[in-house]
Amino acid sequence: MNYAEMKPSEVRGLIRRGEITSPTSGMCAGYAQANLVILPKELAYDFLLFSQRNPRPCPILEVSDVGSRELSIMAKNADIAKDFPKYRIYEKGVLTGEYTDVEKFWRDDLVSFLIGCSFSFESELLETGVPVRHIEEGCNVPMYNTNIECAPAGVFSGNMVVSMRPIPYDQVIKAVNVTAAMPRVHGAPIHIGNPEQIGIKDIHHPDYGDSVTIRPGEVPVFWPCGVTPQNVIMNTKPDFVITHAPGHMFITDVKNIDLKY
Amino acid sequence: MNYAEMKPSEVRGLIRRGEITSPTSGMCAGYAQANLVILPKELAYDFLLFSQRNPRPCPILEVSDVGSRELSIMAKNADIAKDFPKYRIYEKGVLTGEYTDVEKFWRDDLVSFLIGCSFSFESELLETGVPVRHIEEGCNVPMYNTNIECAPAGVFSGNMVVSMRPIPYDQVIKAVNVTAAMPRVHGAPIHIGNPEQIGIKDIHHPDYGDSVTIRPGEVPVFWPCGVTPQNVIMNTKPDFVITHAPGHMFITDVKNIDLKY
Repeated sequence: MNYAEMKPSEVRGLIRRGEITSPTSGMCAGYAQANLVILPKELAYDFLLFSQRNPRPCPILEVSDVGSRELSIMAKNADIAKDFPKYRIYEKGVLTGEYTDVEKFWRDDLVSFLIGCSFSFESELLETGVPVRHIEEGCNVPMYNTNIECAPAGVFSGNMVVSMRPIPYDQVIKAVNVTAAMPRVHGAPIHIGNPEQIGIKDIHHPDYGDSVTIRPGEVPVFWPCGVTPQNVIMNTKPDFVITHAPGHMFITDVKNIDLKY
Repeated sequence: MNYAEMKPSEVRGLIRRGEITSPTSGMCAGYAQANLVILPKELAYDFLLFSQRNPRPCPILEVSDVGSRELSIMAKNADIAKDFPKYRIYEKGVLTGEYTDVEKFWRDDLVSFLIGCSFSFESELLETGVPVRHIEEGCNVPMYNTNIECAPAGVFSGNMVVSMRPIPYDQVIKAVNVTAAMPRVHGAPIHIGNPEQIGIKDIHHPDYGDSVTIRPGEVPVFWPCGVTPQNVIMNTKPDFVITHAPGHMFITDVKNIDLKY
């Protein structure tokens, strides 16, 4: 199946029926993808404020109404509890399970946050000739914890998570410009070149996702990542949180180009 | 006094001492100005969500911590209760008073929202040769209620308020481009040309601010306005709200150009 060329509603249908449970990088080229955080209402204000104060790692695309599994902006006929290929449930900060469907865990006090994902801009990078290594190598994007502090908000504080793509030196400026024009899916890089500068000890051992090859003449370029809120939420060890599994995104009906306006 | 050339901290000092109580349009050229909404914490989530869903009229620049009168991003040594030239207090949706200082009304459960203001981009318009009529005529910008529905959030719903500047036909495209580059202070216009299209009956009788001259060869151009949240909040008739008086803004320490990154 050529998932890159399929419509979002088609791929979401495959995901809902459990026929896709893999990372979504490269699927539905040109359409925005989204990270997920689902929290009880009592934590929703602090989290919304955290995202307002940290728009680079947490660009909010849509917030559901309390208890609702529907979306009104980013997709039609979507089911938040079924349309991600893989979910994680955390209880008191501990990962207690991965699921391809979280319907049975749903509660009336849950609020869902869809957060922009850098997978969205990868088709734009490819179109302009910038390589995307984890798509070439058929694996998940490498993601790392960093020493970059987020602005705290209420109970939430912690450091930024970043995604990394190796870029040829002569394409770095283009990669910056292409992604800077897409702030709702993380926008420009947060760092170029020196992993240690942002607290990454070993570029070959990412904290999430898979390691990718960095070829001679390429530089690691780091973008703010939508796994950041998961990292920050886990610091507070809340009783109950649902997130997507890193790399396993929601594919929206909204084209990247339409996020600009 | 040439307020356009003064530093924000200097003008805020004059405002805090009650020496400026007028609209702030044209003051501290190049620095972002901000609208104000102060709500009890129990309404803060719905309002933050409203602003997330309506970023054109409600671009949030900073949200205070609960009960705090300080800011951490947009200004140093500011006092939210004193540094706007004029405030309004609404009780159960009724305007009960205008004040140049609201310290005596302060409560520990109040949350302050600073919202981007289109006064911020007027110096950029002037620099590129686009006229700003209300500055020329020394009055407040004209603002209008419209028929443009905002996306509802929790208890909040209502229509957009817009500000209007008459622009010569041959400068309209430039005005669109200059302001589109500044989304955190309302960005591009929401309508060009026909007031009736957006529900404005009489362009010469604004709902807020002052009427300005529209000369032959000029077209009225409308931008989303930070008075929108006041309008929306009043619809719900909350027990207690503090806002700025329309046109009487907070002058931040942050340059417009720095809001872009």
